[in-house]
Amino acid sequence: MNKRMIAYVLGILLFCEAGLLLLPLAIGFIYSESVITSFLITIAVLCVAGFILTRLKPRDKTIFAKDGLFIVALGWIFLSLFGALPFFISGEIPNYIDAVFETVSGFTTTGASILSDVEALSKSMLFWRSFTHWIGGMGVLVFVMAVLPLAGGGGDLHLMRAESPGPSVGKLVPRSNKTARILYGIYLGMTVIQIVLLLIGGMPVFDSITITFGTAGTGGFGVLNSSIASYNVFCQTVITVFMALFGINFNIYFLLLFKKFKDAFKSSELWVYLGIMGTAILTITINIRGCFDTILEAFRHAAFQVSSIMTTTGFSTTDFDKWPELSKTILVMVMCIGACAGSTGGGFKVSRVILLLKYAKKTIHSYTHPRSVKVITFDGQRVTNETFQGTVAFFIVYVIIFAVSLLVVSADKYDMVTDFTAVAATFNNIGPGLGKVGPTANFGGYSALSKLIFIADMLLGRLEIFPLICLFTPSLHKKHFKKKL
Amino acid sequence: MNKRMIAYVLGILLFCEAGLLLLPLAIGFIYSESVITSFLITIAVLCVAGFILTRLKPRDKTIFAKDGLFIVALGWIFLSLFGALPFFISGEIPNYIDAVFETVSGFTTTGASILSDVEALSKSMLFWRSFTHWIGGMGVLVFVMAVLPLAGGGGDLHLMRAESPGPSVGKLVPRSNKTARILYGIYLGMTVIQIVLLLIGGMPVFDSITITFGTAGTGGFGVLNSSIASYNVFCQTVITVFMALFGINFNIYFLLLFKKFKDAFKSSELWVYLGIMGTAILTITINIRGCFDTILEAFRHAAFQVSSIMTTTGFSTTDFDKWPELSKTILVMVMCIGACAGSTGGGFKVSRVILLLKYAKKTIHSYTHPRSVKVITFDGQRVTNETFQGTVAFFIVYVIIFAVSLLVVSADKYDMVTDFTAVAATFNNIGPGLGKVGPTANFGGYSALSKLIFIADMLLGRLEIFPLICLFTPSLHKKHFKKKL
Repeated sequence: MNKRMIAYVLGILLFCEAGLLLLPLAIGFIYSESVITSFLITIAVLCVAGFILTRLKPRDKTIFAKDGLFIVALGWIFLSLFGALPFFISGEIPNYIDAVFETVSGFTTTGASILSDVEALSKSMLFWRSFTHWIGGMGVLVFVMAVLPLAGGGGDLHLMRAESPGPSVGKLVPRSNKTARILYGIYLGMTVIQIVLLLIGGMPVFDSITITFGTAGTGGFGVLNSSIASYNVFCQTVITVFMALFGINFNIYFLLLFKKFKDAFKSSELWVYLGIMGTAILTITINIRGCFDTILEAFRHAAFQVSSIMTTTGFSTTDFDKWPELSKTILVMVMCIGACAGSTGGGFKVSRVILLLKYAKKTIHSYTHPRSVKVITFDGQRVTNETFQGTVAFFIVYVIIFAVSLLVVSADKYDMVTDFTAVAATFNNIGPGLGKVGPTANFGGYSALSKLIFIADMLLGRLEIFPLICLFTPSLHKKHFKKKL
Repeated sequence: MNKRMIAYVLGILLFCEAGLLLLPLAIGFIYSESVITSFLITIAVLCVAGFILTRLKPRDKTIFAKDGLFIVALGWIFLSLFGALPFFISGEIPNYIDAVFETVSGFTTTGASILSDVEALSKSMLFWRSFTHWIGGMGVLVFVMAVLPLAGGGGDLHLMRAESPGPSVGKLVPRSNKTARILYGIYLGMTVIQIVLLLIGGMPVFDSITITFGTAGTGGFGVLNSSIASYNVFCQTVITVFMALFGINFNIYFLLLFKKFKDAFKSSELWVYLGIMGTAILTITINIRGCFDTILEAFRHAAFQVSSIMTTTGFSTTDFDKWPELSKTILVMVMCIGACAGSTGGGFKVSRVILLLKYAKKTIHSYTHPRSVKVITFDGQRVTNETFQGTVAFFIVYVIIFAVSLLVVSADKYDMVTDFTAVAATFNNIGPGLGKVGPTANFGGYSALSKLIFIADMLLGRLEIFPLICLFTPSLHKKHFKKKL
C-alpha cells in the first residue's frame, strides 16, 4: 500500500475543502453574519491538517485499486468530520454528532436532517449545507481530479471507480482527468440552466441557487421548513424535471453532447428507469386522485414525489405519509431501486436491478435446459463474470447491512415503519422516510447510537459499501504491508 | 415430456388423498358428526378423477427433471383444490376461495387462517385441517414414494428433489424410495413421541394428536381460538422443544440413527441454526422482561415464540404484537431466515444464508486480491457453481415475488406492517404476522385478489419457487413437445 501517496491525496482533499468553504464565507460577508468566524476557524484547521498530510512528498505516485478504495473511504470520512465544524463551532447545531449527521447527510446527498426548524439557520450555514450536496453529488475526488491530475498509471481511474456509483465505470475519453472535467462540465451546465429557470419562475436568488444544489446532487436539503411546497407550480415543475434529469447516467449526456444520439438512446437502463418512473407516477396518480381537487393536481404531486424519491433526492411538496398504503408501498419500492448508475442519485441502481433480473432468468433457463450455455449481454456488451459476482455480492451485503441497521435502530422508541423507512432512506441516500421520519418530521429524536448507524449507512450507501468495508478488513492492511516490506 | 407418466402419477396422488381422507372420516364417525357426507363426496370425486388420470398406462416410466417439477407443482395444486372440498361442501367454510386458502395454508404448513372462530368447526374438519399439516410437512410425493416405488431411472430422486426444501438434496441411502421410507419413519417416530409426551402432560387425546400434527409439519393450525396459550406450562415446553427439533435437517436424525455422531454434529447449519435461535431468545427475553412477572416467564414466552416463528410453525402463547419494536423486528428477521434445509420448516433456510454469506465474503476477498482463487466449502464439501447460481437466483426471485405480492396486497385497506408481515408470513409458510394479521387476528379481512396472492405465495414458498415457475414457462412446454414428436 502506498501510504505516503494516500496521505498526500487526503491532504490535497482537505485543502480543497478549505477552498470550497470560501463560498459560504463570502455569503456570510454579503449578509454580514457573525457566524463567519466559524468558517474562518474551520478553514484554518483544514489548512493545518492539509499541510501536515502533504508535508511528506510521495516517492512514487502510483495508486493501486486498494489504495483508491482507501483514499475514497478515508477522504469522505475526513471531509464530513471537518465539514461539520462550522455548524458545531457556530453553535447552530450544538451537538457534534448531530452536526456530523447533517454534514454526512449533505455530502452523501441524502438530505435527511436532524433539524426541526431549518429556517432558524443563518444564510451562510444554509448555503454550506446545500453546497455539500452539490459537491458530494458528482464526487469530491472526481472534482479534485478535474482540477489537477493526481496520480499516474491509471491511478485516477481507480479513484474514480471507487467513488462513482454503479456496477462498472468506464472512461468516456482515454484520459481520466479529462473524463472528470467533462463530467463536471455537464454537471455545472445543467446546474446553471436550472438556476436560470428557477429565477425566471420568480424564486429568490438565494433559494434558486441552494435548491438547485439540492436538486443537482439529488440531495434534498431545502431552505424552508415546508421544503418545496410553498414555491409556485412552475418552479415545482422545473424541479420535478431536473430531479429526473440528474438521476440519468451522465454518460448519456456525454453521448448527446458529442451528437451520438443513436448510442445514447440505445441505453436499456434509461428506458427501464423512465418506464418504472412513468408506471409509478400513473399508478400513484390514480391511487391518490381522491386526495386532491383535480386529477392534474394529483398527477403533479405524484410526479414530483416519484421523481424526488426514485432519484433519492427527498424534496417534498406534500405530506405523502398521509397517502394510501399502495402509494406509500410504491414509494418505498422506487426508494430501494434508486436512480441510474453514473448519475448523482443513490439507491440500489436501475442497472443492478436489470443485471440481477438477467442473472435470475439465465439461471432458471439453465435449470430446465441443463446443456444450454447462455451469454448475458447488457446494451450489446457481454457482461463479465466479475461484474455479476460483484453485483450479487453487493446485493447480499446490502441486505445484511440493512438488517443489522434495522436491528440496532429498532431498540429506539419508534414503530416499525419509521425504523424501516429511516434505514431505507439513509442507506439509499434519500432523506425523508415515513411515519416519524416522514416528510414533515426529522431524525432528531433518534438516540446517538442510532444516529451513528445512520451516519454509517449514509456513507456506505453513497460509496456503495465496498470502499468502507475494505477499510475494516484487517487482512488487507497486513498483506499489503508485507508486500511493501 | 412424458405426459402419460405425469397424468399417471397425479392420478395415484389423488387416490392417496382419497385414502388419507379416510382418517377424518373415521373421526367424524367417532364423534357421529353430520359433516361426514362431505368427506364421502370428496373421496368419490377423488376416486373418479384418479381413475380417469390413471386409465392410460404410461408406455415408459421415466421421469426427467422437468417432469418432476411439473408433477410436484401440479400435484400440490390438485391436492389443495380437492382437499378444500370438505370445508366447502359441509358449509363450514362457505366461500371456496377461503376454503382453498385454508387448505393450501394447511398443506404448505403455513398455518395462516381466514377463520376467526376455529372452535366453531366440527371435530372431523379440525382433524383434517391439522392432518394436512402433517401430510404437507414431509411432502406428499415423498409419502407416495415411501409406499410404492413410482418410477425407474432416477425418476424418484427428481421428484424428491423438486419437493424437498433446501438448496440441494442428497439421497441418504442408494435407493430413493428407501430414503423416503427412512425419512417418514423418523417423522412418524418423532410424532408419536410428542403425542405421548403431551398426553402425559394432561392434554386431551384429540388436542394432543392435532397439535402434534401442527408441530411436526411446522404448520401452526391449533384447535382452540387461543392457539397454545391455554395449555399448561409442561405442554407448552414440550411443543417449544419439538418445534425446534422439527426445524432441524432430518439428515442429522438419520446420521444419529445410524450412530454416526461425529458426522451429525459436524453440520455447520445445525450450529448456526441453534446459534441464531439462542441469540434471538436471549435478546428478546431481556427486551420483554418488563412485560412479564418473572424473567423465567419472559424466557419461556421468548423461547416459544422464537422457536415457533423461526421454524415457521406459527403457534403462539401470547400476543407478541404487543411486544417492544426490537423484539418484533427480531421475530420478522428470524421469520425470513427460517429453519434448516431438509426439515419440515419453511423460510429462506439457514443453509442458504450461510451460502450467501460465504459467497459475499469470497467476492469481497477477490475484490482486493484479484489474483487469488478461493474455493468455497460447506461442511468440508466443495460447493459447486450450480448450487451457488441456484441460491443466488433463488434469492433474487424471492425478493421479486415478495415485492410484487406486497404491491398487490397493499391496495387493500390495511397498514404497511400488516401487509408486509402478511406477505412474509405466507411466503415463508409461517402463519401469523403482525398488526391486523397478528397472532390474535386472521387473514379473513383481505380481498379475494389478495387471498389468491397469498395462496400463490404459500405454494411458491413451500415448493421453493422453481417448480411453479417452470409450470408457467411456455418455452418449456413447446420445446419438449417438439422433442417428443
